[in-house]
Amino acid sequence: MTAPDADGRLALDLDRAHVFHSWSAQGALSPLVVAGASGCEVHLADGRTLLDFSSQLVNTNIGHQHPRVTAAIAEQAGRLATIAPQHAVLPRGRAAEAVLRHAPAGFSKVFFTNGGADANENALRMARVVTGRDKVLSTYRSYHGNTGAAVVATGDWRRIPNEYARGHVHAFGPYAYRSEFWSTSVEQEGERALHHLERVIVSEGAASIAAILLETVPGTAGVLVPPPGYLAGVRALADRYGILLVLDEVMAGFGRTGTWFALDQHDVVPDLITFAKGVNSGYVPAGGVLISDAVAAHFEDRVFPGGLTYSGHPLAMAAVVATIEAMEDEKIVENAARIGTDVLAPGLAALADAHPSVGEVRGTGVFWALELVTDPETREPVGAAAMGALKAELLGLGLLPFVQDNRIHVVPPCTVTDAEVATALAAYDRALTTLDASL
Amino acid sequence: MTAPDADGRLALDLDRAHVFHSWSAQGALSPLVVAGASGCEVHLADGRTLLDFSSQLVNTNIGHQHPRVTAAIAEQAGRLATIAPQHAVLPRGRAAEAVLRHAPAGFSKVFFTNGGADANENALRMARVVTGRDKVLSTYRSYHGNTGAAVVATGDWRRIPNEYARGHVHAFGPYAYRSEFWSTSVEQEGERALHHLERVIVSEGAASIAAILLETVPGTAGVLVPPPGYLAGVRALADRYGILLVLDEVMAGFGRTGTWFALDQHDVVPDLITFAKGVNSGYVPAGGVLISDAVAAHFEDRVFPGGLTYSGHPLAMAAVVATIEAMEDEKIVENAARIGTDVLAPGLAALADAHPSVGEVRGTGVFWALELVTDPETREPVGAAAMGALKAELLGLGLLPFVQDNRIHVVPPCTVTDAEVATALAAYDRALTTLDASL
Ligand SMILES: Cc1ncc(COP(=O)(O)O)c(C=O)c1O
Ligand SMILES: Cc1ncc(COP(=O)(O)O)c(C=O)c1O
Repeated sequence: MTAPDADGRLALDLDRAHVFHSWSAQGALSPLVVAGASGCEVHLADGRTLLDFSSQLVNTNIGHQHPRVTAAIAEQAGRLATIAPQHAVLPRGRAAEAVLRHAPAGFSKVFFTNGGADANENALRMARVVTGRDKVLSTYRSYHGNTGAAVVATGDWRRIPNEYARGHVHAFGPYAYRSEFWSTSVEQEGERALHHLERVIVSEGAASIAAILLETVPGTAGVLVPPPGYLAGVRALADRYGILLVLDEVMAGFGRTGTWFALDQHDVVPDLITFAKGVNSGYVPAGGVLISDAVAAHFEDRVFPGGLTYSGHPLAMAAVVATIEAMEDEKIVENAARIGTDVLAPGLAALADAHPSVGEVRGTGVFWALELVTDPETREPVGAAAMGALKAELLGLGLLPFVQDNRIHVVPPCTVTDAEVATALAAYDRALTTLDASL
Repeated sequence: MTAPDADGRLALDLDRAHVFHSWSAQGALSPLVVAGASGCEVHLADGRTLLDFSSQLVNTNIGHQHPRVTAAIAEQAGRLATIAPQHAVLPRGRAAEAVLRHAPAGFSKVFFTNGGADANENALRMARVVTGRDKVLSTYRSYHGNTGAAVVATGDWRRIPNEYARGHVHAFGPYAYRSEFWSTSVEQEGERALHHLERVIVSEGAASIAAILLETVPGTAGVLVPPPGYLAGVRALADRYGILLVLDEVMAGFGRTGTWFALDQHDVVPDLITFAKGVNSGYVPAGGVLISDAVAAHFEDRVFPGGLTYSGHPLAMAAVVATIEAMEDEKIVENAARIGTDVLAPGLAALADAHPSVGEVRGTGVFWALELVTDPETREPVGAAAMGALKAELLGLGLLPFVQDNRIHVVPPCTVTDAEVATALAAYDRALTTLDASL
């Protein structure tokens, strides 16, 4: 580690002077200064290289600077950078087709947005217009974006200062390790969560509920893989009460869980699927809604009351096509599945065995969480100071971690290699040893 | 005009099969198929070239495929396409600095978003958090975006099916040609609009209002240039009642009105300025909020409760820097001003003289509207069928127009030449002759 170069100093100075940061008090920030990145590595301006086990905000599923995607962006920039959404252009149609290749049967239309928040906004809009109903039911422990409806559908602290939308209600989802239902097994947790969900539906008045909005696997809230049968049970409840089911695959989609969509691992087909992040690994801002044929039919001769200037932006679309084709050709989703089953699952289980501070390991594919506790009996979460120290130690060991509350999320690109996982596991092991000693 | 080529046919087929369009019933659409574009021209797949007097959705202020911007995008794609917002990268700092170069004194921070809607969402969030107040006051005849709060702040038909946010109230703005205040001059319209605004503020309870949100020049609603003194009067009311003033420059900003920001032509400095579109001509999705120092200070040691995955996206930022530098070096804003004063103002006035259907001409820079009426006395708006025929005739004449309600918005790129304006004026003249004859 050396001092940052001139560009790095300028980047930091301009950042501190002029860039206003998300979800933060601005005064105390000391951002890492990034000069470049490739594959699973991020290069800092001070000469250090970090192994990226964050995938940034869990979006670079294909890794950094995949040459096929960057070439497609450059090529499209030279051809046609922007065009209004009302005109037809080939990259947009091809991107829709590419996304739909991996969707469940019964989906043939895509509405493109700029990111995950506006994908959820538009999915909720469709559900409300189609059902003529008002309320949106989502879960505590969820994140759906920062815009008006998305942030109130959210179920974490970010909702509270932003509660300016009406018609949102929340229920608890399954979370066996910290059950809200006094359950004693994963199976019971799933059953009780469904019972609770139905009780909330009935108590709110089923006929007032337009949509149930769920992350297929709640991500930021802790990679809460749902119990077997839970999502199929939600689908059955939605059908029983005429409610549309929206699955948010913004973080879980496009290979993260080891399948194209997380829902592929559950016996469920929703009415709407929202996506962003992995669809083009965030190389160009993009998101969208996959629309089931029944919902699409509603808008054949009725006006859809939503839209945005950059819907189906050509540059974003070219990146979508290249990303999906590269993931297909290079079997990147298959790699995420294999890494999950063969390398991360046993490796993280070994960490849990070795470290009393690891209360639970959860996940699938390249989407895992280590839940850290001060005491395995009480399951008391590790506090902010200790988590900060853990993060600093991991950075010092050359790992860019994803630390959230009392958890490490193990979320490398889907392209991660066995050797990179081994390096990361060694770093986690060392830092957890320090943590154990401090508790 | 020939049949579209194979790529064009495929683009149209995929669009109709898979692409869900903004603000439309999906069944009846027949989009133009675009193969490419450059400067003020759009090239269709059937071989036709259209003169772009729409700037798409009034966003390609620098024209299509400006080589400096497309090169910057390609270059940044090869260097670092994406990085999470919490890290510092040089293009983000440089983009913030470039935008701030053209901001009023007293602004030194920028929060970047993906587009105009989420820029407004975040500005309203800041105003609510800073004031601790609830309500947002905006105008009928406005558009602010399609997400939860932005769409309810909107004052056109798009709000009505989307009214799921609370705390929004609307007042009438000045519009001398169709006064809501029985005024008989532009000066009186401005005075009465201020009186009306203060009456709404007081009647709502001034202490409940966090923000007044106005388009500096309401765009989609008809290029409603405010009367002299109006915006200064709004600023005075905001100050009197402790309300923050948010000016939406998403459409009006970055040269559209012949100055960098439309507010430069009015004696007003707001607390927050939102932007998108022209900031990088939409080459990569981007928007943002310019934050006055007083507002920024509030968040030095308090958490800002908003954020998004692609805030300050490197590719978008590289396009911002290149766009602003090219506009500076090539004096593109100066060109917009000169074209407005010397060419469009007299040219459009001549159209109004020649055509009884032109009820009013309004505008500045390359931001104009022709308001079309069936009768200059009653000011009855021209109906949808006649406007459709007008649009078709303009397209047939090789012009890509921006038609909205009973108006033609004359909104070419800021780079438009005298000769291109002359061509467009001739097309408008011919189509208006047909319209006059039909009325
Ligand atoms: C599940 C989920 N939904 C929605 C979003 C919001 O996406 P964006 O930040 O692109 O608006 C996120 C972002 O982390 C997410 O994880
Ligand atoms: C004044 C104004 N504000 C906000 C928006 C919304 O911008 P976006 O479509 O990028 O969300 C628009 C779009 O036309 C606009 O004209």
